[in-house]
Amino acid sequence: MEYSEVFSTWRELCKAEWDSYTKHLFVERISNGTLPKTAFLTYLKQDYIFLKHFSRAWGLAIVKSDSITDMHTCSKVVHALLNEEINLHIEFCNNEGIPTKELEETNEMNQNLAYTRFVLDAGYSGDFLDLMAALAPCVFGYGEIGMRIGASQYSAVYKEWINTYAGSDYQSLCCEVGNLIDNSVIRKLGENYSTLGKFKELTHKFKTATLLERDFWEMADI
Amino acid sequence: MEYSEVFSTWRELCKAEWDSYTKHLFVERISNGTLPKTAFLTYLKQDYIFLKHFSRAWGLAIVKSDSITDMHTCSKVVHALLNEEINLHIEFCNNEGIPTKELEETNEMNQNLAYTRFVLDAGYSGDFLDLMAALAPCVFGYGEIGMRIGASQYSAVYKEWINTYAGSDYQSLCCEVGNLIDNSVIRKLGENYSTLGKFKELTHKFKTATLLERDFWEMADI
Amino acid sequence: MEYSEVFSTWRELCKAEWDSYTKHLFVERISNGTLPKTAFLTYLKQDYIFLKHFSRAWGLAIVKSDSITDMHTCSKVVHALLNEEINLHIEFCNNEGIPTKELEETNEMNQNLAYTRFVLDAGYSGDFLDLMAALAPCVFGYGEIGMRIGASQYSAVYKEWINTYAGSDYQSLCCEVGNLIDNSVIRKLGENYSTLGKFKELTHKFKTATLLERDFWEMADI
Amino acid sequence: MEYSEVFSTWRELCKAEWDSYTKHLFVERISNGTLPKTAFLTYLKQDYIFLKHFSRAWGLAIVKSDSITDMHTCSKVVHALLNEEINLHIEFCNNEGIPTKELEETNEMNQNLAYTRFVLDAGYSGDFLDLMAALAPCVFGYGEIGMRIGASQYSAVYKEWINTYAGSDYQSLCCEVGNLIDNSVIRKLGENYSTLGKFKELTHKFKTATLLERDFWEMADI
Repeated sequence: MEYSEVFSTWRELCKAEWDSYTKHLFVERISNGTLPKTAFLTYLKQDYIFLKHFSRAWGLAIVKSDSITDMHTCSKVVHALLNEEINLHIEFCNNEGIPTKELEETNEMNQNLAYTRFVLDAGYSGDFLDLMAALAPCVFGYGEIGMRIGASQYSAVYKEWINTYAGSDYQSLCCEVGNLIDNSVIRKLGENYSTLGKFKELTHKFKTATLLERDFWEMADI
Repeated sequence: MEYSEVFSTWRELCKAEWDSYTKHLFVERISNGTLPKTAFLTYLKQDYIFLKHFSRAWGLAIVKSDSITDMHTCSKVVHALLNEEINLHIEFCNNEGIPTKELEETNEMNQNLAYTRFVLDAGYSGDFLDLMAALAPCVFGYGEIGMRIGASQYSAVYKEWINTYAGSDYQSLCCEVGNLIDNSVIRKLGENYSTLGKFKELTHKFKTATLLERDFWEMADI
Repeated sequence: MEYSEVFSTWRELCKAEWDSYTKHLFVERISNGTLPKTAFLTYLKQDYIFLKHFSRAWGLAIVKSDSITDMHTCSKVVHALLNEEINLHIEFCNNEGIPTKELEETNEMNQNLAYTRFVLDAGYSGDFLDLMAALAPCVFGYGEIGMRIGASQYSAVYKEWINTYAGSDYQSLCCEVGNLIDNSVIRKLGENYSTLGKFKELTHKFKTATLLERDFWEMADI
Repeated sequence: MEYSEVFSTWRELCKAEWDSYTKHLFVERISNGTLPKTAFLTYLKQDYIFLKHFSRAWGLAIVKSDSITDMHTCSKVVHALLNEEINLHIEFCNNEGIPTKELEETNEMNQNLAYTRFVLDAGYSGDFLDLMAALAPCVFGYGEIGMRIGASQYSAVYKEWINTYAGSDYQSLCCEVGNLIDNSVIRKLGENYSTLGKFKELTHKFKTATLLERDFWEMADI
């Protein structure tokens, strides 16, 4: 299944990087349930901080939109991040004995900081497309990972996490973001977008964010 | 009724400007129904464009927030603007024979451009507080106007507009934004905030935005 | 003389607006010396404020540059604005009995605010090219005006102003900015840039800034 | 010698972090000449990329300034970075057989990306003071390091690097930036600035940037 034509182009151009992220050992161990719980919790606590900055970045996408239609989509993503994804992290951590206060006070690791601030600067310094290119690897990568594990024989250990990203809510959000990106890229750069220098810049941002996603898995010892 | 302590301070410091905006002849004629329909529609079409940029500015407030709680409030305002206030404008205009396409193609007048871009630059160049100071006159001014007219003997001609801003949804949004501003100002600048240079800068932004609101009424000939 | 291929394209696409700005009555009266001194001083005081925000916008161009070469050019423009153009305004006003303090305290008029904040938001919300499109009308328009008047039989009344913009320093800055814009547009959007939606957006920004330049002349009664 | 009162306050509040940065083994080995040349070149190539983003951040400081005086100072720093510091890096690397092209194509390491994008986001999302707090550790730390080594019996191996930061040009730039920060902080937050929540936020940004400076030394194996 393809969320977006532009995303497929980017993924094709960054194949090795994409696989190093979406097929990382961390992901495989979530799938087969062998990931140590402590590693998962380390990841989840960093991801809580990540989601805060990722929501900020989608807020920036509202400011950088040039139509009310696009603003609606971006606002919907902010809403989903703040009301669903972040709450899932809080609940999951609370169930594991980590209170919200501890989540809030988690020390942000360098890989986390590098990734989120890279996305924010790409957005602030560039236009809507630059921001989308930096946001895309997270959105679609988790979509692909969820879809792939969800369709396989997976262990029940991390089934809530898997169900979140394999679920139809998240998958249809990916399609909506895919449309948003395809429409903006084609509207601004035309059907032959992939030949333009601007698109090479977008691809470079996509690639950097993909590598930063890969490094994100490596914050926890596994 | 007071939405916020900080807002009350600003209003007190800019009393003449505040009255020139909230008690403008345009407002009185909405209240007593003598405002020409053409003037109202001119205003509404400009306000449609305004709301688009105002939603962008509240998107910026999400990026500039430093807590998830504040992000929730700002995201809620974006949601209300995009899903309620803008839709009311579209419906009202459609009922008056102005199709959405015409709304979209309305030429932005200078007063509108001056106001919205001032708010956006105040936000981009300053911090969360600078953005709030520039956003406050619109939010609270419409709240006060709606409340005052709603409590008076008003004409039925523009009752939908009046009910929107006098209504409990809008009024409780004002209270929420009031809390957001009070909490941020006190958290950052302390209880004696009003003595600080930073607060004088905020007041200057509040005053400029108030005058730009006054000028906004003057786009239409009345 | 042509400063830039991209600028020539924009000017051609906005011919009526461009002429309404560069051939404005205000400009003709500077040329023939019939512009009242009070009008000129009103303009100069507003232009002092304008140059401050225009320098800020060129500072933003440094942040939005993607090469050290481009950063050098933008830094050079900031330097010229702060050290030469603004100083000329101060000197001229001082000679006319307006102290620097009065300049600093000048009330910013709406047309001024509309223009400068439009440029800043175009820059913050867009990429380097969006910023350049909004900056271009000022840079090149003053170049053209200076060049045209400088080559004509002009009155000595405003000769310092005329010499500034007709002079080789300003003219060669225009060529440098022209190169910067041509190189960035072609590097990012290719040789056929003029067919792209992104270029239509840039042209719209150029046109809006051109109209705001025209309105800038109209702040003073002439 | 003290560059600034506010800086001294920050340094005091982050003493352990400050020492871990300014007295890092990497620095000691520059001083006594035992740092392997390969480590120094790795550092220099990363620092070339760093200086590009650092110059961008000082460009942002121009946009965020609220007076022409402050804009002058920030523009001067941009000028010094682009025309002096970056050129020294280029010359030094060229002398070591690393052509400028190789410098340009250096792969940006995560620690570098984390640091520069943190500074840029702090600046974009905050006000002038937030940006200054994130810029301060680099400016003053190199000043202190240069001053301390320059006053000691240091090895000749890295004497050009040492002389750059110990030299009067760099030291007087530190004093100018120190004044800029003291004046802005006191103008905006008053004499009792250190008690305010806003100042705690600034200190947190200073501390994070200090730790990112420490990590910067650790990119090269020594």
